[in-house]
Amino acid sequence: MSVRRSSVQELLHSQELEREVVVKGWVRTRRGNKYVQFIAVNDGSGFHSIQVVADAERFPEEQLKADGVENGAAVMVRGKLVASQGKGQTVEIQAEEITVYGKADTETYPLQKKGHSLEFLREIAHLRPRTNTFGAVLRIRHAMAFAIHQYFNQHGFYYVHTPIVTGSDAEGAGQMFRVTTLSDQNPPLTEDKSGVDYKQDFFGKQTNLTVSGQLEAEVAAMALGKVYTFGPTFRAENSNTARHLAEFWMVEPEVAFNELQDNMDLAEDFLKSLVKYALEHCADDLQFLNEQYDKELLGRLQFVVDNDFQRLTYTEAVEILKTARQKFEFPVDWGTDLQSEHERYLVEKHFKKPVILTDYPKDIKAFYMKLNDDDKTVRAMDVLFPGIGEIIGGSQREENLEKLQARMAAMNVPEHELWWYLELRKYGTAPHAGFGLGFERLLLFVTGMANIRDVIPFPRFPKSAEF
Amino acid sequence: MSVRRSSVQELLHSQELEREVVVKGWVRTRRGNKYVQFIAVNDGSGFHSIQVVADAERFPEEQLKADGVENGAAVMVRGKLVASQGKGQTVEIQAEEITVYGKADTETYPLQKKGHSLEFLREIAHLRPRTNTFGAVLRIRHAMAFAIHQYFNQHGFYYVHTPIVTGSDAEGAGQMFRVTTLSDQNPPLTEDKSGVDYKQDFFGKQTNLTVSGQLEAEVAAMALGKVYTFGPTFRAENSNTARHLAEFWMVEPEVAFNELQDNMDLAEDFLKSLVKYALEHCADDLQFLNEQYDKELLGRLQFVVDNDFQRLTYTEAVEILKTARQKFEFPVDWGTDLQSEHERYLVEKHFKKPVILTDYPKDIKAFYMKLNDDDKTVRAMDVLFPGIGEIIGGSQREENLEKLQARMAAMNVPEHELWWYLELRKYGTAPHAGFGLGFERLLLFVTGMANIRDVIPFPRFPKSAEF
Repeated sequence: MSVRRSSVQELLHSQELEREVVVKGWVRTRRGNKYVQFIAVNDGSGFHSIQVVADAERFPEEQLKADGVENGAAVMVRGKLVASQGKGQTVEIQAEEITVYGKADTETYPLQKKGHSLEFLREIAHLRPRTNTFGAVLRIRHAMAFAIHQYFNQHGFYYVHTPIVTGSDAEGAGQMFRVTTLSDQNPPLTEDKSGVDYKQDFFGKQTNLTVSGQLEAEVAAMALGKVYTFGPTFRAENSNTARHLAEFWMVEPEVAFNELQDNMDLAEDFLKSLVKYALEHCADDLQFLNEQYDKELLGRLQFVVDNDFQRLTYTEAVEILKTARQKFEFPVDWGTDLQSEHERYLVEKHFKKPVILTDYPKDIKAFYMKLNDDDKTVRAMDVLFPGIGEIIGGSQREENLEKLQARMAAMNVPEHELWWYLELRKYGTAPHAGFGLGFERLLLFVTGMANIRDVIPFPRFPKSAEF
Repeated sequence: MSVRRSSVQELLHSQELEREVVVKGWVRTRRGNKYVQFIAVNDGSGFHSIQVVADAERFPEEQLKADGVENGAAVMVRGKLVASQGKGQTVEIQAEEITVYGKADTETYPLQKKGHSLEFLREIAHLRPRTNTFGAVLRIRHAMAFAIHQYFNQHGFYYVHTPIVTGSDAEGAGQMFRVTTLSDQNPPLTEDKSGVDYKQDFFGKQTNLTVSGQLEAEVAAMALGKVYTFGPTFRAENSNTARHLAEFWMVEPEVAFNELQDNMDLAEDFLKSLVKYALEHCADDLQFLNEQYDKELLGRLQFVVDNDFQRLTYTEAVEILKTARQKFEFPVDWGTDLQSEHERYLVEKHFKKPVILTDYPKDIKAFYMKLNDDDKTVRAMDVLFPGIGEIIGGSQREENLEKLQARMAAMNVPEHELWWYLELRKYGTAPHAGFGLGFERLLLFVTGMANIRDVIPFPRFPKSAEF
């Protein structure tokens, strides 16, 4: 009867010693002397590897070398799980059998040597998940995704899959990618030859990749009450920065009958619960990132959990910035959008904690935000985080049909494209509010990584769609 | 001090009676007489509405009408939660205050009358979530998505977001949508004018919407061990059927060191646990669908949970089909793909339970499936379900570099596009296996709905990308 394979994580936390176990994973290091060899085996189940002790009588070093038991090789190890006499681990495996599934040539394996730059690792995105850094980041990414689903499920929200291909380009959140099956060189033209005849395209109209699921999430909220989306969104902007991706994942809760205050409460509770989840479930991975990249990471995470977010209006923030003793590159004036330097001043210097700004000038915000009685500001809210700036943007939505139509007209959003969105205001309209969380922005904060291309497995940006 | 809003579901399950409560939701029906009016209010939190009792002295029927307390209106109700004397509910609200947020004109509201066809409701996908049917379907959709994430999280899998925009069209799973930002009428041409110069496109190459995240999931599995994807995938096929969508969601687990047997065990345990979750968490919604659409639904779901799946090879299945007393439209012969009629015969007539077929002829399966020693068949597996046919397709993957290259050459898959996929076999290769579950196929099975366009909020199919 063969022994069931265990994960490295199971074994490292096992109390049942002196038993036969089987692990399968990849060699991280092999070292030792002529009496004994130590092989660190990692199977991705967690940050730490398990130490395999191979006695030289049974496993001579030359034999291990010849078999390819080297960094990167896939191996099966059968042996006895015992208490470890060495430092750094509580248990180890006394090897009885070592089988190599696949070698990794010591000369050519790109991860043979340690200490590659993050830039180099981006070029080999198919191998970088095998490194300590990307293993940690990807496990944290999983943990945050699960925490998001769990939070919403426990709070009575329903997950809604909003469409990726959209016939509307009215959302106004940025430049879009066209989706088509028409001939690339000779697309059919309209009768008057004035343009491409999209009636002949796959969907019978011009279609794009979505920039946000919000408008469709509102549809669902006005029926199911509390909903959220969690899916890919796209921006065809030529932004080659450490903060932008052409393809990224967004989380967008939307709640019927919620007003701006409820929206802020939800955003704060949600973010805190995610960070708390990371601290509780990703301790080993966070510890490594804290040591390797950012000594203040763990402190910053705990700080967010422990402190109330500072809430104030855009107007109040502008007053603070105008009287600040700091020199800004961009001047601050009521009516202009805040720049990253302003947001960071408020969060990192002035309040020294996360900030929620509300009630922005209507002219710098989207058409669907609810107009305040002052007729100048809208019920928008941005959540600003240390080191990140805006991590969440949201608003109470305009639920009044006439006011919404007026805003659409003023901002040149065509009504015929959003007839269904307007009907939400025509039939059983009600106050509602929601927000968008850029998932990779959250991950930048939680992992402490500096470049957004390092918190998504296969980043898409200008001139790059490899893998 | 104002009373916190409760969800209808909370109240229907509350033991705390004789207290003041507030609900916000939409009127489903209003009926009654000159002494008392009964208003059913639903907020989407669950299938059942709560009954609001409005005494005519306080709320004369004419006043309710004038205020718009009619089907579809959004309302706030404040009142006392009491035990119900009527049939059909245990608690009800004695109204003290009724406020209308938004009316739904009784003449024009499309859902005013009951009993619309599913075809008509598809035209108003922005309102259909407000019906009993689509409320039930969307809540079940949420429950299944959550159950998927929970299952994998509990079993040590990591969720990987594989890319939506892909530079590779080598996956061979079907026709693809092109993604571009080039001018639609005058795209730049290559120097020799032979074609469009995709070097000038956003990503510097021709890009498409993904048909599967499997190949990238394999990358992650060869580092993290156990992973899964859950995201949108696309097919640009002109299929106007009740079983096909142009945009649909796929779940694709991939496990390092798993072989075909493990893969079957995982698929069976996974599917059973999802169906069990639905039975335990979606009782009200399933009950309604069982009564309204498919009297055998609940029985079929329980049957899947209770029975082992029948496992046999393609070759054995062909033998059974050849000697079947049933006439088939398409003849069966070793080497041809099975048709829906054959799969349904095996599942519904012969074995009368879910079936897993394995070891298909290599020529009808994808290049990445592991070749058996017979050199004729591959370690593929299809899971066949009653009423659905194939719900899962998967395989053990070819982990041997030379064999994989030979299969790619034979099937005209260009190596240079999949250099990174090949490197997984070059460095630390190991057996691994996985499968794909079409999420909407699962939902057809779990909800008993007949058309795939009715189990996704905003279906995309030829000539249709509305909303």
